[in-house]
Amino acid sequence: MRAAFYISDGTAITSEVFGHALLSLFPLEFEHITIPFVETIEKAEEVKKQINLTYKRTGEKPFVFHTFVIPETREVIDSCDGIIYNFLEHFIAPVEAQLGVQAKPKAHRTHSIHENSYDFRIDAVNFALANDDGSKVTDYEHADVILVGVSRSGKTPTSLYLALQYGVKAANYPFTDDDMDELNLPPFLKKHKNKIFGLTIKPDRLHEIRDERMANSKYSSARQCRMEIREVEKLYKKERIPFLNTTTLSVEEISAKILSETGLQRYKY
Amino acid sequence: MRAAFYISDGTAITSEVFGHALLSLFPLEFEHITIPFVETIEKAEEVKKQINLTYKRTGEKPFVFHTFVIPETREVIDSCDGIIYNFLEHFIAPVEAQLGVQAKPKAHRTHSIHENSYDFRIDAVNFALANDDGSKVTDYEHADVILVGVSRSGKTPTSLYLALQYGVKAANYPFTDDDMDELNLPPFLKKHKNKIFGLTIKPDRLHEIRDERMANSKYSSARQCRMEIREVEKLYKKERIPFLNTTTLSVEEISAKILSETGLQRYKY
Repeated sequence: MRAAFYISDGTAITSEVFGHALLSLFPLEFEHITIPFVETIEKAEEVKKQINLTYKRTGEKPFVFHTFVIPETREVIDSCDGIIYNFLEHFIAPVEAQLGVQAKPKAHRTHSIHENSYDFRIDAVNFALANDDGSKVTDYEHADVILVGVSRSGKTPTSLYLALQYGVKAANYPFTDDDMDELNLPPFLKKHKNKIFGLTIKPDRLHEIRDERMANSKYSSARQCRMEIREVEKLYKKERIPFLNTTTLSVEEISAKILSETGLQRYKY
Repeated sequence: MRAAFYISDGTAITSEVFGHALLSLFPLEFEHITIPFVETIEKAEEVKKQINLTYKRTGEKPFVFHTFVIPETREVIDSCDGIIYNFLEHFIAPVEAQLGVQAKPKAHRTHSIHENSYDFRIDAVNFALANDDGSKVTDYEHADVILVGVSRSGKTPTSLYLALQYGVKAANYPFTDDDMDELNLPPFLKKHKNKIFGLTIKPDRLHEIRDERMANSKYSSARQCRMEIREVEKLYKKERIPFLNTTTLSVEEISAKILSETGLQRYKY
C-alpha cells in the first residue's frame, strides 16, 4: 500500500484536506500518516528518515503533501525520497501577479486563533451545549438557528459542528409526543419561527439507530419511528418549516446545506 | 475589497480550506463567499451571474476557488469573469503518472459518509457528551483519551473537536478543590493513567474567561485562578502527566498537539 504523508509546521490540517481531496479521486487505498508541528530542523530530519524508511519498507515512493512556512525545515523535507506535492507553491506567483502584492508567509496562519480576537467558536460551542435537546436554558433570542426534529435525527452533532467550524449558534429542540399530539409548534418555538430548521430521517434508519441505544423498546420500534417521522414531516409542511432528510448525509453535508438554505454567514474568517 | 468565491458541487469545504490557506499568505482583506451544492447547470448559471455582478460592483475580478466533479457545471463556472483556481487539476496528471492508475472523479467524495459505513464520529460525539465534565457516566474503559484540567481550560470544546473531526473518543474530567487538596489523582482516574492528558492555561487568561461567566465570584478571582493553575501543574509534574498550555492555541492546534503527543490515530479516512 502506498503511504501518504501530511506534514506541516502547523496543524497539518490544510495538507490533509488537500492530499485527501486529491487521493480520493483514485480508486486505491493509501496508508495515511499525519505529522504536525515540524518546527525544527531536528524534527524535520527525523520525519525525513521516517519517509525514507517507509520507501525502503514498501518499495514505493511515499507521497508527501506539505505546507511549510519556514524554508529551512521545508528544504529538509524536500530532500527526502518521497514525491513532494507542495500545492501552495504553484499558486503563489499567479495570485501575487493578480494582487500586485507579495505573499508574506507566517507560521500558524490558517488554523490558529486570530490575533487579539477571542475564539468566538468556543462561545458557540457553549451556546450549543446550553441549548441542547430542549434543555431548560432556551436562549432562543440569541440563536442563529434552531434545529428541530425527533430524537436521534442528527440535531446535536450538527449543532456542535456548526459551532466548532463556523461559530454559528445553533440551539436544538427535540419534538416529543406532546408536541406531535397537537401537530402544533410550542409557543416558545413559534415566536422564533423564522429561525427554525427541521431535520428528518428515513424511519428504517431511525429504527436502526435507536435500536442500538435501546433495543426492543417502544422508543426504538419500527412502528414508533414510522409514526414519529410521518407526524413530524406533516408538521414541517403545515408550518412551512424548511427541512432536510439526513439519512445519507454526513454532518459536514447537513451543516453546509443548512447554512446554504438559511443564508447564514460562516463566521470562519 | 477583492471577493473570493468558494464553489463546489459538494460541501465546498475543500475549496474553502485551499483558498483560505492561499489567501492567508497575503496581508489583505477579502470578501469571502461560499456556495456549496452547485449540482445543476441552472444553479451554475446563477452563480456565474453572481460572480460577474461582483466583478462589475467591485471593479476587480473575483477569485474563484472550485472543486467540481461534474464537467458540465464546471464549464459554466470556468466561463465566468472571475479568475479560476482549480487546484486539483494541476496535480491529477502527475499523480496518475506515479500510480499508473487513472483518476475516477465521483461526486461528494471528500466530505460525505463512506458507503455502507456508519458515521463513527457520531458515536464519538455521543461518547464525548456522555463523558463530559466528569459526569456520572464515566466510561473511561472505552475512552481513547481522558482530558483533565481545571474548569474552563478548554477540555469540552477539545473533546468535541476530537470527536467530530477524527472520531476520537475523548472523556474529560475537571479537577475540583477536593482533588487538589490531596494533590492526588482520584482512583478512577489513576486506573487509566496512561490515557490522561492535561490542559493548563495562563492564570490571567483563565481569570478573564471565568469573569465573563461569573463576574466577581471567588471562582473567577485572579487569586483563585492562580492557585488552581499552580496546583494543577504541580499535580501534572508529580504524576508525570503530559500536558499542554492552551492559552494561545486554537481548538485545532490543541487537538493536533494531543493527537501528535499521544500517538492516537486519526480515524478520519
